[in-house]
Amino acid sequence: MPPTIGFIGIGIMGQRMCKNLIKAGFEVHAFDLSPAAMEVAKGLGANTAPNLATLARQVEVVVCSLPDPAALLAVVDGPDGILAHLKPGSLICDMSTADPVTARAVHAKAAAKQIAALDCPVSGGPGGAEAGTLTIMVGGDQAALEQARPIFQAIGKNIVHCGGPGAGQAAKLVNQSLVAIHTVGLFEALLVGRKQGLDLDTMVNILRTSSGASWMLDNHIKMKALVHNHEPGFALDLLFKDLKLFVQTATESQAPAFIAGAALQLYNAARAAGHGKQDQTVVAREMEKMAGVELGVLKA
Amino acid sequence: MPPTIGFIGIGIMGQRMCKNLIKAGFEVHAFDLSPAAMEVAKGLGANTAPNLATLARQVEVVVCSLPDPAALLAVVDGPDGILAHLKPGSLICDMSTADPVTARAVHAKAAAKQIAALDCPVSGGPGGAEAGTLTIMVGGDQAALEQARPIFQAIGKNIVHCGGPGAGQAAKLVNQSLVAIHTVGLFEALLVGRKQGLDLDTMVNILRTSSGASWMLDNHIKMKALVHNHEPGFALDLLFKDLKLFVQTATESQAPAFIAGAALQLYNAARAAGHGKQDQTVVAREMEKMAGVELGVLKA
Amino acid sequence: MPPTIGFIGIGIMGQRMCKNLIKAGFEVHAFDLSPAAMEVAKGLGANTAPNLATLARQVEVVVCSLPDPAALLAVVDGPDGILAHLKPGSLICDMSTADPVTARAVHAKAAAKQIAALDCPVSGGPGGAEAGTLTIMVGGDQAALEQARPIFQAIGKNIVHCGGPGAGQAAKLVNQSLVAIHTVGLFEALLVGRKQGLDLDTMVNILRTSSGASWMLDNHIKMKALVHNHEPGFALDLLFKDLKLFVQTATESQAPAFIAGAALQLYNAARAAGHGKQDQTVVAREMEKMAGVELGVLKA
Amino acid sequence: MPPTIGFIGIGIMGQRMCKNLIKAGFEVHAFDLSPAAMEVAKGLGANTAPNLATLARQVEVVVCSLPDPAALLAVVDGPDGILAHLKPGSLICDMSTADPVTARAVHAKAAAKQIAALDCPVSGGPGGAEAGTLTIMVGGDQAALEQARPIFQAIGKNIVHCGGPGAGQAAKLVNQSLVAIHTVGLFEALLVGRKQGLDLDTMVNILRTSSGASWMLDNHIKMKALVHNHEPGFALDLLFKDLKLFVQTATESQAPAFIAGAALQLYNAARAAGHGKQDQTVVAREMEKMAGVELGVLKA
Repeated sequence: MPPTIGFIGIGIMGQRMCKNLIKAGFEVHAFDLSPAAMEVAKGLGANTAPNLATLARQVEVVVCSLPDPAALLAVVDGPDGILAHLKPGSLICDMSTADPVTARAVHAKAAAKQIAALDCPVSGGPGGAEAGTLTIMVGGDQAALEQARPIFQAIGKNIVHCGGPGAGQAAKLVNQSLVAIHTVGLFEALLVGRKQGLDLDTMVNILRTSSGASWMLDNHIKMKALVHNHEPGFALDLLFKDLKLFVQTATESQAPAFIAGAALQLYNAARAAGHGKQDQTVVAREMEKMAGVELGVLKA
Repeated sequence: MPPTIGFIGIGIMGQRMCKNLIKAGFEVHAFDLSPAAMEVAKGLGANTAPNLATLARQVEVVVCSLPDPAALLAVVDGPDGILAHLKPGSLICDMSTADPVTARAVHAKAAAKQIAALDCPVSGGPGGAEAGTLTIMVGGDQAALEQARPIFQAIGKNIVHCGGPGAGQAAKLVNQSLVAIHTVGLFEALLVGRKQGLDLDTMVNILRTSSGASWMLDNHIKMKALVHNHEPGFALDLLFKDLKLFVQTATESQAPAFIAGAALQLYNAARAAGHGKQDQTVVAREMEKMAGVELGVLKA
Repeated sequence: MPPTIGFIGIGIMGQRMCKNLIKAGFEVHAFDLSPAAMEVAKGLGANTAPNLATLARQVEVVVCSLPDPAALLAVVDGPDGILAHLKPGSLICDMSTADPVTARAVHAKAAAKQIAALDCPVSGGPGGAEAGTLTIMVGGDQAALEQARPIFQAIGKNIVHCGGPGAGQAAKLVNQSLVAIHTVGLFEALLVGRKQGLDLDTMVNILRTSSGASWMLDNHIKMKALVHNHEPGFALDLLFKDLKLFVQTATESQAPAFIAGAALQLYNAARAAGHGKQDQTVVAREMEKMAGVELGVLKA
Repeated sequence: MPPTIGFIGIGIMGQRMCKNLIKAGFEVHAFDLSPAAMEVAKGLGANTAPNLATLARQVEVVVCSLPDPAALLAVVDGPDGILAHLKPGSLICDMSTADPVTARAVHAKAAAKQIAALDCPVSGGPGGAEAGTLTIMVGGDQAALEQARPIFQAIGKNIVHCGGPGAGQAAKLVNQSLVAIHTVGLFEALLVGRKQGLDLDTMVNILRTSSGASWMLDNHIKMKALVHNHEPGFALDLLFKDLKLFVQTATESQAPAFIAGAALQLYNAARAAGHGKQDQTVVAREMEKMAGVELGVLKA
């Protein structure tokens, strides 16, 4: 008998995961603060809960897909949070990107009520969420992971047990720091090339087949800022948040973050210029201003 | 009738290119300041020239593979340099990694004597040089490139005309900046993960199949510093030089280099610690010291 | 009739401020988690409270001198915090260094119970606290400041009203970022000079009378790391916290922090090496390691 | 009998030093590439030389005040340079700001012709040059310094023997790095304060009497960018050059320059925006753009 699922956070990622869970036969009770999101959930075939307490009393597993650590803590342990209403033996799966410290706090608070918790952020973006092919990075106990596995199998393809509580979030942040660094590092390189008279297409063609190649250039950047498409994709505000959590984790962990710290400041400038809701690669536009030159548009 | 070639700089890269030229049927006259390197050249079947002047008087094309811009300028335009002895209509192909400013200076000095010049640095490393599969990034006139093409075809596989004088060097530096940034960015990410308790193999496995993937991790770093193999590969002193030229070019060009500039300082610390002759990824060892933790050794 | 004061946090700064308040005739009720600190308070002539609730019920003004924002929030609004027990019309003066966001949260929580709050961090260090000559940077309402003025006059000399809630903390962080930057900037400069063969005394003599002069060099650094005296002074862990809050505030505010962000990483490396409890200028020792050279000891 | 002086480079600094030398009774032969500058020299009472060779044959001491290391090398050792024409026993005093490597090269080239050389850059700006109160940082032999002392006494007040060849330039760069860091560090701090609602005057008043105080704020910045006066003062292009030479020297010396390197990039962005000829503090205007806020104008 598959568990009843409470799904909290019906955003761009959440609604796609929700849909795949329903398609796989799970009974899903959804909650989101936005009425529009709730309508989307209904349209997918989910039940909707009027509030977190009601949702928590009706389900055995809660899946969260929330914008930041503060939202997660409010949902889990706020005055009307789910921990006060879930039954012992329940499971909380947080699929948001948060930080390891917050993940461990959620785990500890849940454990105190005999509730299991997993931090299980995903990579693969809206496309992977739609196709059910996300990579899921899991932190927490093996037993909890086995409890969650049927759910994860409906959502993702590659399920990696990274370690104990917080390890899933740590692994996600490790990846996100490279997403950011490969992006701004590339724009620095391309701007110098432009100043030296190189053509954008020539540079990109060389880089894609050389030692400077990266997944980001091949799969994301050349379809976004390099063709002046700033639709997210992955919103700058979200990558900024991930990178900020990475630098914060590095600093608290006493590990060096000279490169990531400098990258954070470039994204910071792009936010100050009002680009937060656009694709994160829009940072190129601010870096162009610092250089006083434009990269141009990729032809092929 | 193939041109007679003078080859200056019989180092790790130079000797492999030399061998392929001889194999392709070119008559090669070699010169290097090191007697040992001259012995190597002889062993490959090259003629050896007693000095630059003699070499210059015997050949139609000079190919250089030298350690830095100063060495190049000395060879070309020093008191006993080749420009004083080459015939009008000759061609100089500089396959070293230098900077665009130096490349343009060589081009102008050569042009003043009706000698053509190409800046044509390579990527692919000793392996690519051995196999004759180097990528050659060419800056200079189309006519000079056509004159050089048979030579390049004996050495490399991918010949890219990047633009006018200096464009080859600019393209190379663009790539090298990313080699460096992808390296130190990765070590920052991995050290934070280690501090958070993640296993090195787990992180590498995730990154190789995620949006943080890079050519450097897949093809170089996991065979070098991550298994404590510090044999170059690509010596730290050489990457430092390339990155320094990139940052210098960025600064002179008024393009931002916050990320590359910070990376340069990390390599700088590794040089101060005496790692210059080891593979560039040895920078991981100094970053571990800053973190007070070790990454460990990759198992698979 | 002077108000009865509750003083929370009897550390290096707190005990000195406490002493001056008692000397000025205030009745002080003290609380600290450490029994040793409570003995100190008793020795100064303070009453000691068994817990925060008892203290809060006995006083009209609470003065806090606490290590970080988390400690402050626990004292003010934790399960046994003072807000639940203070009378309407009371006043909370937080003299710790925290961040503007936390200060505004304290202000709002207090206001909801008709309790006034000021954020009023100090500068001048243990010496200024002992002498009663601290500079006090005040954020909050003018009325609350007038209520607190007699207290501040017993502790400090220079009372600056910086603006509304949070403005005192903001002003303090602005200053602290420069304390940090002037310190690490100086060590970078001196290390380059040493590498170039300059004598430490020569450099310091020039800098003190030139455009590179700073209060930090003249009043702190030359008595600390430059003579290998690492007794705090101002502990590295504390400056690290202040600088971290500055960078965090910059990032949240969308203001650039390239310089402060890089400085934070240097202090981070010094913490990883175990220097957190020493004077903040001990960061010089880690920077010497990055350079592979020692600055030596200042003679005069 | 005072030596006859050749003065090369009659710019903003040069003409003021020239005037003081003539006032002190020295016979001065001046040279500058700009006819307008030559007119100025004539107006001051200097003889003018038609070219470097003529000048060199007429004088015993050459004083240079030139814009950069390349200009210095051209003057000293170019095809028509002074070294070919000076008599053995002459002395070259380079008062430009260059780098230690260039200074040592000049010293060596001069020594080979039995000519002495000093690197003796100055601090104090146009005001100090006018008043004859410059600080002169001298690198080179004691004997050469004694030969130059009467000349230096006519120009400056504080003559510091910093060490052997290059030591004067090293000392100057050490100071200049702090000029730059104290400037951009201050603007970062002030911008965060502005974002947090602080008034510019309040911040400046606090900083001037606190541990964040610096000579730069007190003597330069508050009269320049903080009141929107962008007249140089000290031109951004010149400080950029000094800072670039500092970072280059740090990098070549294997000393860390994380802070100075980041500062260089901020000045770089200001140059790209066309501010090179304005006072160096104009960098504030570019940093304001990165923050999306204005600092405002200091009232008092």
